[in-house]
Amino acid sequence: MQNMELQAEAIHVVGPCDIWSFPLKMRERHPLEYVRQFPHLRCRNNTLGALLRIRSEATASIHSFFQDNGYVHIHTPIITSNDCEGAGELFQIETSREEKESVEKSHFFNVPAFLTVSGQLHLEVMAGAFTHVFTFGPTFRAENSQSRRHLAEFYMVEAELSFTESLQDIMQVMEDLFKTVTSTVLSKCPCDVELFHKYIAPAQKGRLEQMLKHKFMIISYSEAVEILKQAPQTFTFKPEWGCDLQTEHEKYLVKHCGEVPVFVVNYPYDLKPFYMRDNEDGPQHTVAAVDLLVPGVGELCGGSLREERLPFLESRLQRLGLTDAYQWYLDLRKFGSVPHGGFGMGFERYLQYILGVDNIKDVIPFPRFSHSCLL
Amino acid sequence: MQNMELQAEAIHVVGPCDIWSFPLKMRERHPLEYVRQFPHLRCRNNTLGALLRIRSEATASIHSFFQDNGYVHIHTPIITSNDCEGAGELFQIETSREEKESVEKSHFFNVPAFLTVSGQLHLEVMAGAFTHVFTFGPTFRAENSQSRRHLAEFYMVEAELSFTESLQDIMQVMEDLFKTVTSTVLSKCPCDVELFHKYIAPAQKGRLEQMLKHKFMIISYSEAVEILKQAPQTFTFKPEWGCDLQTEHEKYLVKHCGEVPVFVVNYPYDLKPFYMRDNEDGPQHTVAAVDLLVPGVGELCGGSLREERLPFLESRLQRLGLTDAYQWYLDLRKFGSVPHGGFGMGFERYLQYILGVDNIKDVIPFPRFSHSCLL
Repeated sequence: MQNMELQAEAIHVVGPCDIWSFPLKMRERHPLEYVRQFPHLRCRNNTLGALLRIRSEATASIHSFFQDNGYVHIHTPIITSNDCEGAGELFQIETSREEKESVEKSHFFNVPAFLTVSGQLHLEVMAGAFTHVFTFGPTFRAENSQSRRHLAEFYMVEAELSFTESLQDIMQVMEDLFKTVTSTVLSKCPCDVELFHKYIAPAQKGRLEQMLKHKFMIISYSEAVEILKQAPQTFTFKPEWGCDLQTEHEKYLVKHCGEVPVFVVNYPYDLKPFYMRDNEDGPQHTVAAVDLLVPGVGELCGGSLREERLPFLESRLQRLGLTDAYQWYLDLRKFGSVPHGGFGMGFERYLQYILGVDNIKDVIPFPRFSHSCLL
Repeated sequence: MQNMELQAEAIHVVGPCDIWSFPLKMRERHPLEYVRQFPHLRCRNNTLGALLRIRSEATASIHSFFQDNGYVHIHTPIITSNDCEGAGELFQIETSREEKESVEKSHFFNVPAFLTVSGQLHLEVMAGAFTHVFTFGPTFRAENSQSRRHLAEFYMVEAELSFTESLQDIMQVMEDLFKTVTSTVLSKCPCDVELFHKYIAPAQKGRLEQMLKHKFMIISYSEAVEILKQAPQTFTFKPEWGCDLQTEHEKYLVKHCGEVPVFVVNYPYDLKPFYMRDNEDGPQHTVAAVDLLVPGVGELCGGSLREERLPFLESRLQRLGLTDAYQWYLDLRKFGSVPHGGFGMGFERYLQYILGVDNIKDVIPFPRFSHSCLL
């Protein structure tokens, strides 16, 4: 596609480049794994260039979406003394000097400090002052995984809404966010998106536009388990009420629903973290949690209503032996609690989904994962 | 100021709050040091509430400024194997598991990894693909300082411009950014800004509007040293060509110029990092560097032209014994180098300046500094 032609009268070389030693060749479509070897040069490749322009537009659109809807942006902390869900491996922080100096080292912050895995609890602090808040920043997992869906450093969009008593409200914001940002990217970067849908993921072409026209589907966790149990195929992990949905299950559910985004709601109480709200549909039976599953990627978003009732939260933290560590979190309920909830969306997985990129390492400028931290 | 009155027919208490144990009292103007003790509740105080709304507007305005001017937003990495300027103390990262497991531990990333102190070098990578790029994210210093101007975790806005051969271009963007964001904040949050200029920093009132009308001043480092030498006051550090400007010097210079923002340009070669461009006004005499000094805060921004000439950079890195570590950075010059430059602005210092807030801990939602990492 070329709608312009240049006729130069003179050419001035600003900085020469030896084409023999330069690893990216003209008029050659290098595989993404190949260009990944050159983290300092790969942005000059047109696929990565297109990706980074799209990423930039999506970033701007996320900020606009929340700002336009009256959300206050909060920089939740990167370094934290709090390990949120207790889930996932954490990165710990020390000053480089400490390591050298002494055996019985003292911490820079006096307490052990970690890289954040989620800004949610800090957003809940803020939801006590502002009705709607959001954050969009880096989060970290020290998982020793080489999967095409995991990074050690990745970006999350997280939002928290006060005065909300239904998961529907949360799902509405998730769907609106997804559709608004995707429409913006499609209209602002048509050529860059086209490149992906032409060369990287031809099957994706036209699908996004279709998806934008329809409401996302909603099924309950219990329905999901029934669907899986009745599936004609055999799974490595047998589907059973009370067990986590595995990647193979997510994949099947999305296919079963027609390769469209699907919300799965109301998960077993024991599967989910302490802050999720008890649905009271039985003794500690299910909580008001929601995951959004999308084709090709699996879990894209996760959210829930938060347990705003002090006695419920107290007894749950007590059973977990976490009352002391989360006294401040109980305080949020003690001093003027309101029903609230929120969600998080993995930004790289979002980009993977809309562009059809197989490996998450190809949708972030400088991927960090186990055994690799280039530049 | 109240332009509305409510007449309630019924009141429904959503979540009660015991006013006797709640640490923030109604109709009381608590000192900022007092509310700082309650990181999970202080956002409910009206001063912190105003601050966070202003911070949110300023954040949105920074994104818009760059987006409107054709910049591509880049998420530069938080974890890096590169220590940028070699300046400042670094935080090092390990997985929390490693520490427990073995004495001869191996690194998660195979190499020592640190929290970033600047996204500049990574932005320079991107400036080889896009003409204008910017980043706006957290940066870290493990300095054991309790100063009112330093945090262990703080936010920086950084931009890099290709095809730029003069510091003037860089300073123009710095000034435009500053003025655009400040105008936006003043027009979008008049009441919140008013609160600061009424109760926190009365001297600031009206000054910002004045400042927005005038061009920032520009003096050279050599002129600055002359001004300091002729000052009627005695400094703790004697001003001398070739020495760093100290806080007391910055303060005097800003006062001397009439309490307005002042650019200081062309610093001694030996004072500045290896990537700054030699002005060739003598054998390794000065480099094309610029700092922006503002009243009350001191250094708000720092920038420079980057050394784009391969032989200059090679010989400088060789003298420093850094050729191997920065081979990738030399590659950027080897494969199609262009004249370029950029700058960084400390976001918290910016907020301190426009609002007249004395302590940097009061302009960030969750301050992290030596001996303190609450929540």
